[in-house]
Amino acid sequence: MTDLLASWNDGEARRAIEQFVETATAPGPGFIDPADRIAAFDNDGTLWIEQPLPVQLDFISRALAEAAQQDPTLAAKDPYKAILDRDARFFAAIGAQEPAAIRALEEALARTWLGKTPEEFEAQVSDYMTQVRSERFGRPYTELVYRPMLELFAYLSANDFRVFVCSGGGRDFMRVIAEATWDIPRERVIGTAPTYTYEEGVIRRSDQLLGGLALGPGKPEHIFATAGRLPAFAGGNADVDIEMLESAGFAMLLVHDDADREFAYTGAAERSVELATKEGWTLVSMKDDWKTVF
Amino acid sequence: MTDLLASWNDGEARRAIEQFVETATAPGPGFIDPADRIAAFDNDGTLWIEQPLPVQLDFISRALAEAAQQDPTLAAKDPYKAILDRDARFFAAIGAQEPAAIRALEEALARTWLGKTPEEFEAQVSDYMTQVRSERFGRPYTELVYRPMLELFAYLSANDFRVFVCSGGGRDFMRVIAEATWDIPRERVIGTAPTYTYEEGVIRRSDQLLGGLALGPGKPEHIFATAGRLPAFAGGNADVDIEMLESAGFAMLLVHDDADREFAYTGAAERSVELATKEGWTLVSMKDDWKTVF
Repeated sequence: MTDLLASWNDGEARRAIEQFVETATAPGPGFIDPADRIAAFDNDGTLWIEQPLPVQLDFISRALAEAAQQDPTLAAKDPYKAILDRDARFFAAIGAQEPAAIRALEEALARTWLGKTPEEFEAQVSDYMTQVRSERFGRPYTELVYRPMLELFAYLSANDFRVFVCSGGGRDFMRVIAEATWDIPRERVIGTAPTYTYEEGVIRRSDQLLGGLALGPGKPEHIFATAGRLPAFAGGNADVDIEMLESAGFAMLLVHDDADREFAYTGAAERSVELATKEGWTLVSMKDDWKTVF
Repeated sequence: MTDLLASWNDGEARRAIEQFVETATAPGPGFIDPADRIAAFDNDGTLWIEQPLPVQLDFISRALAEAAQQDPTLAAKDPYKAILDRDARFFAAIGAQEPAAIRALEEALARTWLGKTPEEFEAQVSDYMTQVRSERFGRPYTELVYRPMLELFAYLSANDFRVFVCSGGGRDFMRVIAEATWDIPRERVIGTAPTYTYEEGVIRRSDQLLGGLALGPGKPEHIFATAGRLPAFAGGNADVDIEMLESAGFAMLLVHDDADREFAYTGAAERSVELATKEGWTLVSMKDDWKTVF
């Protein structure tokens, strides 16, 4: 057993991961050429907590609420109104990827950040990350990244896998924290992203998306566009990760079953748990497979 | 002086490059954080020959000519007709980025590869690379990569720069040769690219571009989207590289002035040569600065 997975209990999940990596790196059947060793992980609920609201959705909500305060005419309109009212149905609709809700949110986002430079956006994300704390844990979100997953990143990297994060959340939001938090370079962060325009030496956000949302089939599509390959290893925790897990040689699905140390919920992951057995994905139980969570 | 640039003569260009890299990597003013050490290079005319026609344009021409042979109704239409007739005006219009010519070419490309899997496309590129030879040198194009530039890649990598290629040519065309030819992973190849769709486990080309053409302002736009940063070091050889060179901390412009060993031409590079002095870019003369070309 490797020393690098110290926060993992010795169980089926850990054994399956180590066996896959050992087979992939030893000459013989199952060997994977180093060039093809791409690993891809979802972020919200796979690398850090996503309750009561995915972190990026909370960040967005605050930005839209602020925009609505500065322009009161917006406050009467959705999605601003739904966000200011903390309308649970609206957040559920986003979680369920309902097209109308997603579209309303996308348009509001485009308006909020149109013309902003990367420096301006980064400063806003940095402020959020230092000022906002999880209600339940009282700590900034960057301290609520799962330690076993960081160990898995280090273990995969030590075996010449190139680790990518592929989240439905905003690519540029994650890039601000990628290097300090995950120890992976920005170019390995994939997510929903705007296009940019370059004019007179300045890069600015446009109001168009670059490709589609990195959710569902959008995940392997974005991974292929970025890496030029589908993943050899993938990790997720929800139904929006199914296509990414399907596209990978080895797949792990994290199950949130630890109400004491994190949260216990199955919402938005019913179909993926059901598929796991059929597809031979490795189920990782937070409660049973992890010695430490944070 | 470094041993890694053995094919470079000791002159102003080599000294400027080494001085930039030494300053960037030593504590003090001009130091560049390793995370920010992004280097980006154009491909055609910067890394390999682009005469009489950029390699990818030759590849495309052959694919369109083949499509026109299989469907004779296409042969009467532009751009198929212009390509079958080897119409010099059409190729010049592409080189000058005339919108109508570019659009006609894009549409023909989308049709040619619509629905193709990456494996099918890669096989076609591999065949081309092994079968087709440069008329002048009688060798496959992958043997006509400039040795001094490969040395520069190795020198930058040894100093913790992450080297990217950013070409107006097709991203997926270059990715086929990136690892064996340049020793850089596919995810560091940026270029004009289609979107893909993922359905039932299969990635296929769509008929849409992902972002715009990687030419002119499209170069820094694509580099920022991929790397999350603008380049610290950039290299190019033509007017379509101007914005990328402008966006970089250090810029080098390769001048094709060596009719004996390669080609001598200034077409499509007039404006960039003019700008070089004004902007303080390092001019690299193929004739004077390189001991060996291939």
